[in-house]
Amino acid sequence: MAVYTDVSENEVTAFLADYGLGKLLSYKGIAEGVENSNFLLRAEGGTYILTLYEKRVDRNDLPFFIGLMEHLAAEGLSCPLPVKNSHGLALGELAGRPAALFTFLEGMWTRRPTAGQAWQVGEALAGMHLKGQDFALQRPNALSVAAWRPLYEGCGPRTAEVEAGLSAEIESELAFLEANWPSNLPTGVIHADLFNDNVFFLQGELSGLIDFYFACNDILVYDLAICLGAWCFEQDGAFNITKGRAMLEGYNSVRSLSVEELEALPILCRGASMRFMLTRLYDWIHIPDTSFVTKKDPKEYLQKSRFHRQVRSVADYGFTSQLLNQ
Amino acid sequence: MAVYTDVSENEVTAFLADYGLGKLLSYKGIAEGVENSNFLLRAEGGTYILTLYEKRVDRNDLPFFIGLMEHLAAEGLSCPLPVKNSHGLALGELAGRPAALFTFLEGMWTRRPTAGQAWQVGEALAGMHLKGQDFALQRPNALSVAAWRPLYEGCGPRTAEVEAGLSAEIESELAFLEANWPSNLPTGVIHADLFNDNVFFLQGELSGLIDFYFACNDILVYDLAICLGAWCFEQDGAFNITKGRAMLEGYNSVRSLSVEELEALPILCRGASMRFMLTRLYDWIHIPDTSFVTKKDPKEYLQKSRFHRQVRSVADYGFTSQLLNQ
Repeated sequence: MAVYTDVSENEVTAFLADYGLGKLLSYKGIAEGVENSNFLLRAEGGTYILTLYEKRVDRNDLPFFIGLMEHLAAEGLSCPLPVKNSHGLALGELAGRPAALFTFLEGMWTRRPTAGQAWQVGEALAGMHLKGQDFALQRPNALSVAAWRPLYEGCGPRTAEVEAGLSAEIESELAFLEANWPSNLPTGVIHADLFNDNVFFLQGELSGLIDFYFACNDILVYDLAICLGAWCFEQDGAFNITKGRAMLEGYNSVRSLSVEELEALPILCRGASMRFMLTRLYDWIHIPDTSFVTKKDPKEYLQKSRFHRQVRSVADYGFTSQLLNQ
Repeated sequence: MAVYTDVSENEVTAFLADYGLGKLLSYKGIAEGVENSNFLLRAEGGTYILTLYEKRVDRNDLPFFIGLMEHLAAEGLSCPLPVKNSHGLALGELAGRPAALFTFLEGMWTRRPTAGQAWQVGEALAGMHLKGQDFALQRPNALSVAAWRPLYEGCGPRTAEVEAGLSAEIESELAFLEANWPSNLPTGVIHADLFNDNVFFLQGELSGLIDFYFACNDILVYDLAICLGAWCFEQDGAFNITKGRAMLEGYNSVRSLSVEELEALPILCRGASMRFMLTRLYDWIHIPDTSFVTKKDPKEYLQKSRFHRQVRSVADYGFTSQLLNQ
């Protein structure tokens, strides 16, 4: 989490001139988002987030991301709303980078989620899936099953440094996932990165979702599998079935899960574990230790992968047939 | 510039409970200040800066720093005002660290100061010197002339890596400064670090001073010498006499400079150059390249030191006898 680009008052003032928000009062680089530079900006017209898109984000994807936030906000989802300038555009340029201004979302991300919060995340995720249904743009998931083997191969022989036997374990699991990955489940726009630092709460109530820069089109319940992995494990690596049940119930209360989706959940959770283990492994191997980036532990998702491999059915995630029959 | 300590919503909420500012709405780590962790905090009662004091700041100095800001704000200086909690205290504890809440100061620091801004900085600095006169607490300057030789010796033989002959040049200059440092000039509370990132402007007008964590008791015009070095040189290292004149005039318009102070200015500027060259040199040698801290170039102040050594009188800084006789 870092500010990558510093910008001068003159640059920000020139950028802001097109927005009709009055005079610039202040802007502070904030430690939020790892792909972009973010500033908390105060103008006479209010408080906003100014985002500068750095190299890791493909400029061609920006109309999808910004259009999606506009679409979801218009549908009633609480998320940062891109502000349009006097030319009707939400995307501008600042300090040689694409830049956009967003409404400020009050709230804080939770370091230790409760079961009640897991329920609300499930509910909000299902709401996002429904609200995203008629979004016109498409963006394939660049980090889905087809991408994992090349990612793994890019990690090279240093994989063995993480744990003896890891290469064989990954290869076996990759073969299983490639052979059995579901192709008949409902798809749509997914968030694909709804970790706890991307969900804000205010006095215990979910106040909004942020950071749509991994959003894409993919299997809807794959998004739920990502959230189960991100929200329902404890610090010691144990799955918390109370949180799992809460998240599934919260999701199901807004968008009913089909039998096919429920049956596919264990393999989707295995896939989500593979995806985050591999990107972390790749960064662990390729990002120098001297970097500003805080590297995350690939082993955390190796442990989660092993849990999901011994799951027999969604009952092990806390989902009950009673709920299914409601 | 980095956030060193992450804090949870529960910790911030508990801290804020004593302040009567209503519910916590958000807090974001901001890239401001190098010694402490700073958060831009929004509560129902307004927008504030929350500062957590890290190890580099001596806890025993905090009553001086916080008391000084209270004193200066009460005297009408625009600076962050420490907010007192329901126990009447401005200093609390959060996440095991001393912590304080400050009013939010609108404005932005300027990357490319103008002569008009240099004038305003001189004016504000003199105002701070006058307003600080009856502040009761004392804090000796830990980075004044007596500290420079130990600091230089702590740099060791790697000093020569910066530039051939640098050790001899520093030793000669140190001997001159130690032998000739003035002892008869007016003293008082000085800011001691009034660089351009510690002065905010709003629509061209100075809106306030921040970061009093080097403030101490020392020769008043030594503070002006620090500012001449920080504000009146161009990127290419050349002294800008127009900015120098503006800063001296601005200062003199609020607090009249005596003949003794003016005559001492060149040696004080040489001292200020030595102080910043040495702390930069020390960091350059001792802070590993892998650190988060952006290291500043000691050569910048070596070049400034050489300029000040060939100055004949304050006329070379733009100060005219006409002004002196006003």
